[in-house]
Amino acid sequence: MPIEKDLTHDHNKRASPTAAVLLIGNELLSGRTQDTNLAFMAKALSARGIRLNQARIIPDDETVIVDTLNSLRASSTYVFTTGGIGPTHDDITADCVAKAFQVAIDIHPEAQSRLLSYWSQRGIEPNEDRLRMARIPHGGELIDNPVSVAPGFRIDNVFVLAGVPRIMQAMFNSVLPDLQCGPIIDSVSIKCNLGEGTIAAPLRALQSSFPDVDLGSYPGGVENAFLTLVARSDNEEKLSEAQQALCKLVESVGGKVLD
Amino acid sequence: MPIEKDLTHDHNKRASPTAAVLLIGNELLSGRTQDTNLAFMAKALSARGIRLNQARIIPDDETVIVDTLNSLRASSTYVFTTGGIGPTHDDITADCVAKAFQVAIDIHPEAQSRLLSYWSQRGIEPNEDRLRMARIPHGGELIDNPVSVAPGFRIDNVFVLAGVPRIMQAMFNSVLPDLQCGPIIDSVSIKCNLGEGTIAAPLRALQSSFPDVDLGSYPGGVENAFLTLVARSDNEEKLSEAQQALCKLVESVGGKVLD
Repeated sequence: MPIEKDLTHDHNKRASPTAAVLLIGNELLSGRTQDTNLAFMAKALSARGIRLNQARIIPDDETVIVDTLNSLRASSTYVFTTGGIGPTHDDITADCVAKAFQVAIDIHPEAQSRLLSYWSQRGIEPNEDRLRMARIPHGGELIDNPVSVAPGFRIDNVFVLAGVPRIMQAMFNSVLPDLQCGPIIDSVSIKCNLGEGTIAAPLRALQSSFPDVDLGSYPGGVENAFLTLVARSDNEEKLSEAQQALCKLVESVGGKVLD
Repeated sequence: MPIEKDLTHDHNKRASPTAAVLLIGNELLSGRTQDTNLAFMAKALSARGIRLNQARIIPDDETVIVDTLNSLRASSTYVFTTGGIGPTHDDITADCVAKAFQVAIDIHPEAQSRLLSYWSQRGIEPNEDRLRMARIPHGGELIDNPVSVAPGFRIDNVFVLAGVPRIMQAMFNSVLPDLQCGPIIDSVSIKCNLGEGTIAAPLRALQSSFPDVDLGSYPGGVENAFLTLVARSDNEEKLSEAQQALCKLVESVGGKVLD
């Protein structure tokens, strides 16, 4: 599945590219770390018309990483992994990616040179473990790390990113321009003072008359004090019509649109 | 896979029960909603010795929900789902669970009676959509909702919970006592002023001498100002030994244990 380096937005002729996110790390499954990487990527992908179809959170376990990666990369246009590319014994992602692609993994000269130069400026001694961060599966292209230099990499349709949010975000933003875009999915939100049970029937009817728009309702506030109605679509005109219809709907059942 | 209602902690004779979490909702994959339910459940499961093996985040899509649920319930002792049990058209979880288990779904008399009584006290008219929240797959047992009454349910090894965090938490806490416990996994954290590259080699060696302890290192703070070393184990004695060894290790490479 080759990656098209194509920035055009061809809204009509091309199906939406899809993405899967693979969050790797025992700390996410023990509850020690609250992930924020998924929501960050989800928003950015959505804004480029790339449909995020699923996300998985898995432990630092070789078999699980290899199998899950192989399953996701076969079924999505792009896969983004986070975590496990540091220098310590529990950082096994790069090796697992090499196993999944059945390629060798070795010190990447450019990665090594970047790290040696960075460490030399800071008086840090290279050692075998630090140099592990320069190991890249054969065929992998480096992804810049403007924060702490140790690069991520991309191999075929898989993007291997750091787990630390600031680094992950910088890496992710740097690869975004290389991704194939789809029809942009816009959304509008309408906050109202109704309960879901009051609005469910007319909302269901509205959904039927707007097949190109995805309608959702999300209770919020203390004691579900308000309800947010969300419409999402890649069809701007239909979205605008749906927005107006939602406002009318709220008023038609005695509710009020808030703010 | 019947559920054992057994509260004993038999540390030696029984393998650890496992869990999978299935977060359902388009809003999680569009980035609109930042999930916090996973970390909440992860901590509570960990504290009871139940190993959370994986989590998946999927859209409100019938085929995907049914297939994913069938895969997870076959491979984990317990599955916890969140989201999609409200009254609106995008709340399809209960129907999907019924499909996955190949059972019918209908109004549950007790669920209906609880809801009618709650609505009557608040002057809310029942309607077809509100009553959707009383539909439970055959064989399902109700899970109390002390916040807004509409119940979750449990069928075989699957626990179907609300998506709103306050409601999810109440439901989850009410089913925890029914779960089979495993050897409790305790953890200790040591904060130090070292870089991962400095500590990687001795940490790797330490991991080899403590096969019963899971060691991890997590950079934190601005510019990775500190590093947290985490040891996790169900063996209290080994964990305490590992803690002491970690402190010695930090000092042996010229570092300092912080706070």
